[in-house]
Amino acid sequence: MSGPLRVTIWNEYVHERTSQAVGKIYPEGMHAVLAEALARLLGERVRLRVATLDQPQCGLSEEVLNQTDVMTWWGHASHERVEDEVVDRLQRRVLDGMGLIVLHSAHNSRIFRRLMGTTCMLRWREAAERERVWIVDPGHPIVQGIDEECFEIEHSEMYGEHFDIPQPDELFAISWFEGGEVFRSGCTWRRGKGKVVYFSPGHETFPIYHHPQVQRIIANAVQWAAPSGSLYLGQGRNIPQPLSPISCEHVVDENLHRAK
Amino acid sequence: MSGPLRVTIWNEYVHERTSQAVGKIYPEGMHAVLAEALARLLGERVRLRVATLDQPQCGLSEEVLNQTDVMTWWGHASHERVEDEVVDRLQRRVLDGMGLIVLHSAHNSRIFRRLMGTTCMLRWREAAERERVWIVDPGHPIVQGIDEECFEIEHSEMYGEHFDIPQPDELFAISWFEGGEVFRSGCTWRRGKGKVVYFSPGHETFPIYHHPQVQRIIANAVQWAAPSGSLYLGQGRNIPQPLSPISCEHVVDENLHRAK
Amino acid sequence: MSGPLRVTIWNEYVHERTSQAVGKIYPEGMHAVLAEALARLLGERVRLRVATLDQPQCGLSEEVLNQTDVMTWWGHASHERVEDEVVDRLQRRVLDGMGLIVLHSAHNSRIFRRLMGTTCMLRWREAAERERVWIVDPGHPIVQGIDEECFEIEHSEMYGEHFDIPQPDELFAISWFEGGEVFRSGCTWRRGKGKVVYFSPGHETFPIYHHPQVQRIIANAVQWAAPSGSLYLGQGRNIPQPLSPISCEHVVDENLHRAK
Amino acid sequence: MSGPLRVTIWNEYVHERTSQAVGKIYPEGMHAVLAEALARLLGERVRLRVATLDQPQCGLSEEVLNQTDVMTWWGHASHERVEDEVVDRLQRRVLDGMGLIVLHSAHNSRIFRRLMGTTCMLRWREAAERERVWIVDPGHPIVQGIDEECFEIEHSEMYGEHFDIPQPDELFAISWFEGGEVFRSGCTWRRGKGKVVYFSPGHETFPIYHHPQVQRIIANAVQWAAPSGSLYLGQGRNIPQPLSPISCEHVVDENLHRAK
Repeated sequence: MSGPLRVTIWNEYVHERTSQAVGKIYPEGMHAVLAEALARLLGERVRLRVATLDQPQCGLSEEVLNQTDVMTWWGHASHERVEDEVVDRLQRRVLDGMGLIVLHSAHNSRIFRRLMGTTCMLRWREAAERERVWIVDPGHPIVQGIDEECFEIEHSEMYGEHFDIPQPDELFAISWFEGGEVFRSGCTWRRGKGKVVYFSPGHETFPIYHHPQVQRIIANAVQWAAPSGSLYLGQGRNIPQPLSPISCEHVVDENLHRAK
Repeated sequence: MSGPLRVTIWNEYVHERTSQAVGKIYPEGMHAVLAEALARLLGERVRLRVATLDQPQCGLSEEVLNQTDVMTWWGHASHERVEDEVVDRLQRRVLDGMGLIVLHSAHNSRIFRRLMGTTCMLRWREAAERERVWIVDPGHPIVQGIDEECFEIEHSEMYGEHFDIPQPDELFAISWFEGGEVFRSGCTWRRGKGKVVYFSPGHETFPIYHHPQVQRIIANAVQWAAPSGSLYLGQGRNIPQPLSPISCEHVVDENLHRAK
Repeated sequence: MSGPLRVTIWNEYVHERTSQAVGKIYPEGMHAVLAEALARLLGERVRLRVATLDQPQCGLSEEVLNQTDVMTWWGHASHERVEDEVVDRLQRRVLDGMGLIVLHSAHNSRIFRRLMGTTCMLRWREAAERERVWIVDPGHPIVQGIDEECFEIEHSEMYGEHFDIPQPDELFAISWFEGGEVFRSGCTWRRGKGKVVYFSPGHETFPIYHHPQVQRIIANAVQWAAPSGSLYLGQGRNIPQPLSPISCEHVVDENLHRAK
Repeated sequence: MSGPLRVTIWNEYVHERTSQAVGKIYPEGMHAVLAEALARLLGERVRLRVATLDQPQCGLSEEVLNQTDVMTWWGHASHERVEDEVVDRLQRRVLDGMGLIVLHSAHNSRIFRRLMGTTCMLRWREAAERERVWIVDPGHPIVQGIDEECFEIEHSEMYGEHFDIPQPDELFAISWFEGGEVFRSGCTWRRGKGKVVYFSPGHETFPIYHHPQVQRIIANAVQWAAPSGSLYLGQGRNIPQPLSPISCEHVVDENLHRAK
């Protein structure tokens, strides 16, 4: 791929406008903080765009999706307001190669549940407790540049097991919470030609998206999830002519075919 | 678990009644051949039930599902006639522990696509060609009793790659086709507490479900997919009280909570 | 498989005889406590045998191995006293189908490192701290009968990440430690026809093998790791005759073959 | 990582000098053909070096390894001539992050068997038959630029299942052979911080390393296996001080510690 990676930062953008406390941490929305971080860390390697729930088609028209290589997704209060048509379109685009970075409470977004096939539910507690994010796959590109075996988030919302997801293809982080829980906080999966990342730190009432290591991991995830692979676009289809000669007598009765 | 495994054999049961050729191979439906095989191979270890598309609620009421430990699923012509409500119910039941054995053209069934999150599409050709099913995981319980490294199906429908599925948790068989294709023909995944198996041999116009090794693998799959595991039923939920004392100062502002 | 599962409980059996404190907890050796637990929980489903380091060939002659379906392994002080020949024999037997349950400090045993290909090292601290074992795969047969989402070990040795293992095929438990670490405490892998389980709780200076849920998981692991699968024993070999006719012109020059 | 990727092409370099037929295809050794291909395809992104069996320490001194980011490995006739010390060093270097691309008959090399923990054996036949390499993971970076769902090698040595390897973390290619076999021909694993790729096409008596798509996949594999990840180098070690206060009463008896 040549040219910068085209990244769309999708944000529900509800809490920032309805809660004074959240608005104080993210006055221009969480997307603005993420956009600033990605621009600073990735520079000319990315071209950024923002889309939000209140735009027509959630800001996710066919055209926008076709021009997006990787999307980050934050939602919480209004998952169900993303309509079927948009979810269908997102799923098709991921299967066709778009990377998707699912953040925090978006574990319960419609697109993540659609791609996983499970409830994606978990336990939670909002007690401003200490979280330690342990790197359990130190060779993974997504933790490039993290120079400690764990990093700490002083005040975090607890997300705990059991987290009802298909076993991740790769598990790069597990979080420890002061109150007694653990959580698979950094996971990847492949769906079709697309790469999917889930990364849990990021509650709206704490300034977690200002945290340098959280920003670093999200920036790495964006790069890791860039489309790559075969030019061939797989499509189910009938292949009437065998590539090799078929030597066994052909018993297929044309009537059978018509019966289908 | 005590008592016999409660198995429901689900069959669309369309081709057998609309095509004379298929009806000749499966005069009482494919489900009857599968039921006979499971009864013969598993004896008192199973209690069998049959359900078909033309029954009310596709034969899959809440009550039937609650009394099913493992379900086998065959469909082809009428996937879309299984309504949303039934698919939702099936998905919940799998996540809660029911095993699901997806057969042949049911790769395109709504419940399989729902659990996988991908298109589940593939290439195919109906040329009665030779298929060799190679065992690539000889220690897997599902191939218990198969005493050769491969077995042959003389006339088969070709199913070929690329098969758009999430990488299987376990791949136990790969098929070779005379006409030049390969296919991941035996796969397992876990979803929630449920075990899912896909096994591709089984075209309606060939007597594949009469094949002894195909029957053996399906019988093994039924046993392997039996519910097991923790008695605990995971549910997303708020856990307000930490299990351990939280020593950091609590900064949570009640206003924040109300904002959510 | 008919007849009881033949289980060999291997114990280094050093600490129990050199440390008074350990001897008080396990007066007849850890193997005796494990044997009692397996006998009580599995009854006639198993036939138990014990082997220890100080026996000739570590108690692991060809004959003993051939009569073992599943082995549990505990070692700590004397890993290097298990000779090459015994490690080679163990590896061959696992690849041929024997289950292996690797306990606690045996993460550093020669046979486990041999099967994993990595250092298998981790962080540790002996501070009698609280451990919580969280079940992260509630549908796995190994956690059958555990009826809570986690269980607690009041005084445990901390084992922490990064744990240098190949990503487990299945991860069924993650431990939380009071002092701030997490650990992948319940893992499975497949090697050849054999099933391998690692389960970390079990320090010699705490009575952890008396803990009912620890015993339950080890008993389940023994059953899960029982040999199963194809009767066929794979062996690399030359297959001079193709199963299918080869239609392309044969260009193989006999001189080439002789050159090898 | 800045600067070009430092790639070492290791070749046993025996057949090319002992067989006239092989010498005709690879007059300057297979490494020369691979070096030319990597230089042409990757240009300034790589700095290449060659090492062969007949050099002191197999050309793989500590210094050479420390200056190697990714190594390709071809061997067949003389696997056992690579000494323990070199295999140990290679293993440590892979665990510390070096990528390793294992080619064709190197499935039986000491370093590959060491990293896998299995026999790595397979079936084979040298009958110059047709091989089709099917891409089964079209989104994988290693198949970047392959624009068909499969490509063909006119005359190939058959490598067939069962291939005794741990299930690959990712399976990107499956080969079909005219004579009736299938093979998992493109696989990846992670070991420590290192990435390992196995790619089977490449027999010495056929000009397979001249094949453009084979070259493309090897060049992609070299890039994919480049070291990345955390700066932190995990090492097993004792962590006497907990990061968090431990509130339970400390029962640890100093005598216990001394007993270890």
